Amino acid sequence: MSDRTLCVIGLGLIGGSLLRAADAAGWKVRGMARSAAVVAAVRDAGFDATSSIEDALADDDALVVLAVPLPAVVDVLPMVTRHAPYCRLTDVVSVKQPVAAAVARRTPAARYVGGHPMAGTSASGWAAGSATLFTGAPWVVGSDDGADPVVWGQVAGLALECGAHVVPAGAADHDAAVARVSHLPHLLAAVLASVGADGGSLAMALAAGSFTDGTRVAGSRPELVRAMCEGNRDALLAAVDDALGRLGAARGSLASTGGLTATIQAGHLARRAFDTVRDTARDNTVHIDTVYVELGSPDALAQLRDLGHQGARVVGLEGTRCQVELTA
Amino acid sequence: MSDRTLCVIGLGLIGGSLLRAADAAGWKVRGMARSAAVVAAVRDAGFDATSSIEDALADDDALVVLAVPLPAVVDVLPMVTRHAPYCRLTDVVSVKQPVAAAVARRTPAARYVGGHPMAGTSASGWAAGSATLFTGAPWVVGSDDGADPVVWGQVAGLALECGAHVVPAGAADHDAAVARVSHLPHLLAAVLASVGADGGSLAMALAAGSFTDGTRVAGSRPELVRAMCEGNRDALLAAVDDALGRLGAARGSLASTGGLTATIQAGHLARRAFDTVRDTARDNTVHIDTVYVELGSPDALAQLRDLGHQGARVVGLEGTRCQVELTA
Repeated sequence: MSDRTLCVIGLGLIGGSLLRAADAAGWKVRGMARSAAVVAAVRDAGFDATSSIEDALADDDALVVLAVPLPAVVDVLPMVTRHAPYCRLTDVVSVKQPVAAAVARRTPAARYVGGHPMAGTSASGWAAGSATLFTGAPWVVGSDDGADPVVWGQVAGLALECGAHVVPAGAADHDAAVARVSHLPHLLAAVLASVGADGGSLAMALAAGSFTDGTRVAGSRPELVRAMCEGNRDALLAAVDDALGRLGAARGSLASTGGLTATIQAGHLARRAFDTVRDTARDNTVHIDTVYVELGSPDALAQLRDLGHQGARVVGLEGTRCQVELTA
Repeated sequence: MSDRTLCVIGLGLIGGSLLRAADAAGWKVRGMARSAAVVAAVRDAGFDATSSIEDALADDDALVVLAVPLPAVVDVLPMVTRHAPYCRLTDVVSVKQPVAAAVARRTPAARYVGGHPMAGTSASGWAAGSATLFTGAPWVVGSDDGADPVVWGQVAGLALECGAHVVPAGAADHDAAVARVSHLPHLLAAVLASVGADGGSLAMALAAGSFTDGTRVAGSRPELVRAMCEGNRDALLAAVDDALGRLGAARGSLASTGGLTATIQAGHLARRAFDTVRDTARDNTVHIDTVYVELGSPDALAQLRDLGHQGARVVGLEGTRCQVELTA
């Protein structure tokens, strides 16, 4: 069962939660963190952990998970190349094109399939982690042509065993989507927090739910937010331009006619559509089509990408047969 | 005890909650709504309600509360002038300068003191209301020169009895502050919801906490959001320009140097400062200065405005003596 061995490099909120969740699902797990204090805490919790990446990679049959922030990926990859050049490799980094490019350049022989669990809290670090962090969360599994279908199935299986559902996507599509629904929200939260603070003590005394919710993720660790936003530069620029255009149009309309109908109405309809997407997952009266994709078929990745593009989710995996749900 | 009679014009979320909260606090309450269905529901709940504004205003000793959206204020005021021209008058509308101007023009003999409880949910209507909606919320009481100190004390007393604390502010200061911490958040939520939806089904499938929180208030009824944002046009334009400037600067920095340090760091510090303000209210280790303002003194309103500007809150009222708390 050595293909059920997991080596998690980096034991912050996501890596630490993955270590716990995979352990609970029956994987043999080993974690690596540079900090001796973190390693001690992980061992105290009963897990195998080391501060030596060489030791961590000694079992070269393990599925290796890069769970470090994007800027650290280029430091870790040469070590992977030295100690486990042909390993099965995935990651949990919040952008996918830069990681794929770094892997192709620095660890070209590894069998890499990217991953991104869309879970988190504004807390961070090992202590904030939980075996249930991924329950009900989407977990993107990279589905560009060239990915190894066997590794794809193992990464998807890991995600499912952690309680997530799998969303198949190519790296570019992933990065464009998360720029809009994750990185832009962080940037707007930072801008809103600053504009509010500029209003002084009275404004802070009057801030209620809309400000609290709209600025919540500005409480996240700045270096983590920077790493993910700066790492997705091109896609984020497009999303920011869209936001600037829409906010500028609202400004123009308010200044000229005094009206905000178009902006408010479009936002309301968009949020209601989003609510429908979320509620569908919980509403058993909504019709859901189930389709199956055979990972052994030559166009499996293209099929999966296409389904992911339509909002489908992989909810089960039996051998090489993926069970995919798509709202009708 | 006729000065303990409250007449609430408009029985939506805020007016309906006020009717319940004031009743629970021992006021004699009467509500008015145009919709016969709403009046029936209010009566079924055991309250005195009418669809006739003439009947509602028959007791001309009542403290009258305008609890209608801003655009309806100009329709209601002529009726107040006809049936209770000298009444004690307040309101719960989310902007203060336009209401004050409308009252001065249409109901000049009324003893008007503006109000704005900063409470709400994305739900609306009588059924969504609750006697505890105002618990722990800031309730702005208009403190411009010329306000009647007796009525000021009665409005502040009503707010305190509903479980809120009172923040004294002039109308212009109030409108500038809420543009930043309430109206801009609604506009950014609408923009973010639209930019996310433009990302298609994949983006919606990947949206998690940051998008959910950042767009929550886009679920509010569009006509209510429009009424409050459009009603605060000048102050909102200034806040939008601040946001556009900051988002544009972030865009420029990301495009040129690839960095977002200034934006993310400033937002993080602002959010942490806001957390401190919020936590102070609950943290009994923080030093709080208590000062008293005598409503009978000639500069009482100026004192109160100044304290409100510093983030102070009125937490008690004995006779004409206001107890004010200010974080040291």
